[in-house]
Amino acid sequence: MYLVGIDLGGTEIKGGLFTTDGEAIQKSSVKTPVVEGFDGVCNAINGLINSLVNEAGLDRKDIKAVGVGIPGICDGEGLVYSAVNLYWENVPLGKKLRELTGLDIYVENDATIAAIGEAAVGTMKTAKNAVFITLGTGVGGGIIINGQPYSGSHGLGSELGHMIIGENYYNCNCGSNGCLETFASATALIKYTQKLIKDENRDSIILEKVQGDLEKLNAKIIFDSAKEGDEVASLAVKRLVKYLSIGIANIINLLDPEIIAIGGGLSKAGDYLIDLIKNEVDKYVFYKKEKIRCQLLIAELENDAGIIGAAMFARI
Amino acid sequence: MYLVGIDLGGTEIKGGLFTTDGEAIQKSSVKTPVVEGFDGVCNAINGLINSLVNEAGLDRKDIKAVGVGIPGICDGEGLVYSAVNLYWENVPLGKKLRELTGLDIYVENDATIAAIGEAAVGTMKTAKNAVFITLGTGVGGGIIINGQPYSGSHGLGSELGHMIIGENYYNCNCGSNGCLETFASATALIKYTQKLIKDENRDSIILEKVQGDLEKLNAKIIFDSAKEGDEVASLAVKRLVKYLSIGIANIINLLDPEIIAIGGGLSKAGDYLIDLIKNEVDKYVFYKKEKIRCQLLIAELENDAGIIGAAMFARI
Repeated sequence: MYLVGIDLGGTEIKGGLFTTDGEAIQKSSVKTPVVEGFDGVCNAINGLINSLVNEAGLDRKDIKAVGVGIPGICDGEGLVYSAVNLYWENVPLGKKLRELTGLDIYVENDATIAAIGEAAVGTMKTAKNAVFITLGTGVGGGIIINGQPYSGSHGLGSELGHMIIGENYYNCNCGSNGCLETFASATALIKYTQKLIKDENRDSIILEKVQGDLEKLNAKIIFDSAKEGDEVASLAVKRLVKYLSIGIANIINLLDPEIIAIGGGLSKAGDYLIDLIKNEVDKYVFYKKEKIRCQLLIAELENDAGIIGAAMFARI
Repeated sequence: MYLVGIDLGGTEIKGGLFTTDGEAIQKSSVKTPVVEGFDGVCNAINGLINSLVNEAGLDRKDIKAVGVGIPGICDGEGLVYSAVNLYWENVPLGKKLRELTGLDIYVENDATIAAIGEAAVGTMKTAKNAVFITLGTGVGGGIIINGQPYSGSHGLGSELGHMIIGENYYNCNCGSNGCLETFASATALIKYTQKLIKDENRDSIILEKVQGDLEKLNAKIIFDSAKEGDEVASLAVKRLVKYLSIGIANIINLLDPEIIAIGGGLSKAGDYLIDLIKNEVDKYVFYKKEKIRCQLLIAELENDAGIIGAAMFARI
């Protein structure tokens, strides 16, 4: 028997066909037809499952189950409460896909799905309790407790990005002020760097790198410039590291996991980022007597985390 | 068979003998001989267990197990890493008590123990996932996940009081700045009220109530004065409510429990406090579309939470 993992994003739907051990047999993707609404997206997912099965020379009855990671929040039956990028509110994704495909369908938040992938075959696989943090456009999270994904009593948990950890100079999209996401996402890093250069008129090698067009700024340029000793970039990275470390320490003080794995675009900064965070997290952890026992690591699965995690979620 | 619950505090050791259903048979307490050190305190606990058993006309062999709640952090074997009020660091409480008593001994953090009590026979008993917050001299917490107490991979979790949620005008005892404890404990409430009156020279009915001696100030006076419309007291309560609500929203965004129960000294403010928090928490919860589904309640067990919880912990 085989498993299908679907990673439903705002621009692309990725799909993978896996053995029950997580070995990839076939991968494919299609554009997300957001404008065709809920039904259009469901049809696209159904079509993607079909093509994965056909290309592998299999039949639908060879598929044990399908896992779907969504950019939003949902209950255990796959009722999606909200998925902002898809303009969805209270849509019965699980039910609809069961009808269309005739298959067992399991739906979860995409960051929780990535956590499941990392726990099954990635960097968190030795841990009983672990947390995955994704640092990209936003900040998301997935929690593993006693080896199982945990998203709370109503599927609303593990929203690490909206943990309030201070006051910030702009509000979060969610309406609150001071969310981790507004300090520690790639968006936040870029925004703050732009602010330093524009509002405070500071000089920086960054301006040269983006040919004077700050709209071209990205996280890689900022990290590279910080490594080269640029003051503005260093300030921006330092601020991100401070608040990310507060967020991580809060998670350690609450959940005391063995491993926290960092994924998403910013994780490409790799050991440079991890080393900066480690020193800072030590300051904010409650039990300071020994070096913190929680390991901070860069996630392993990168782009495939979504499809592997979804397939592994369907295995449960 | 019977269970013994021990609530080890910095000033008093409370003990209770219970049926396995949590019915109290006998209660007693002794002063904590802190100056006699680790051995003295262990002997006092052993003596308390003896007197509970004797007074109930029972024998040690009628005791199935003993649970001990400690004001500190420990591992699963009862090795206490740290208990500041007792001046303990890395003491083998579980091992020592097993030797002294010849009984099965289970040691846990006192706030986790109170959570176990509330989950077993108190206000959280219907919940699969629930969090207990104690607001007293400090802020502590206990987490129940899938019906079981959760204190992390190394016993260092559920330290809600040291979640960093903003910047404060004074540092926490733990060395960090902005811990929930420094905004939402009784100590924080009193300290901020004193600051408003002393540093800002504000007039308040509080001054009359404490006969001009701000050292006599307590949380009850502040809450009562706020209810009477006193401006200083209202400001202090409002600040506490704001930050406590941020802390609670952070817990909801992370753990999405069915119930959060509030205990400790400040919980005596009852529905007045709960109503203020409910309105404020709604502002900071990520999923705002419906009323938050997590119930906020005042804990039920009050002073006996420690001994009941410890006995129920030993039942597991």
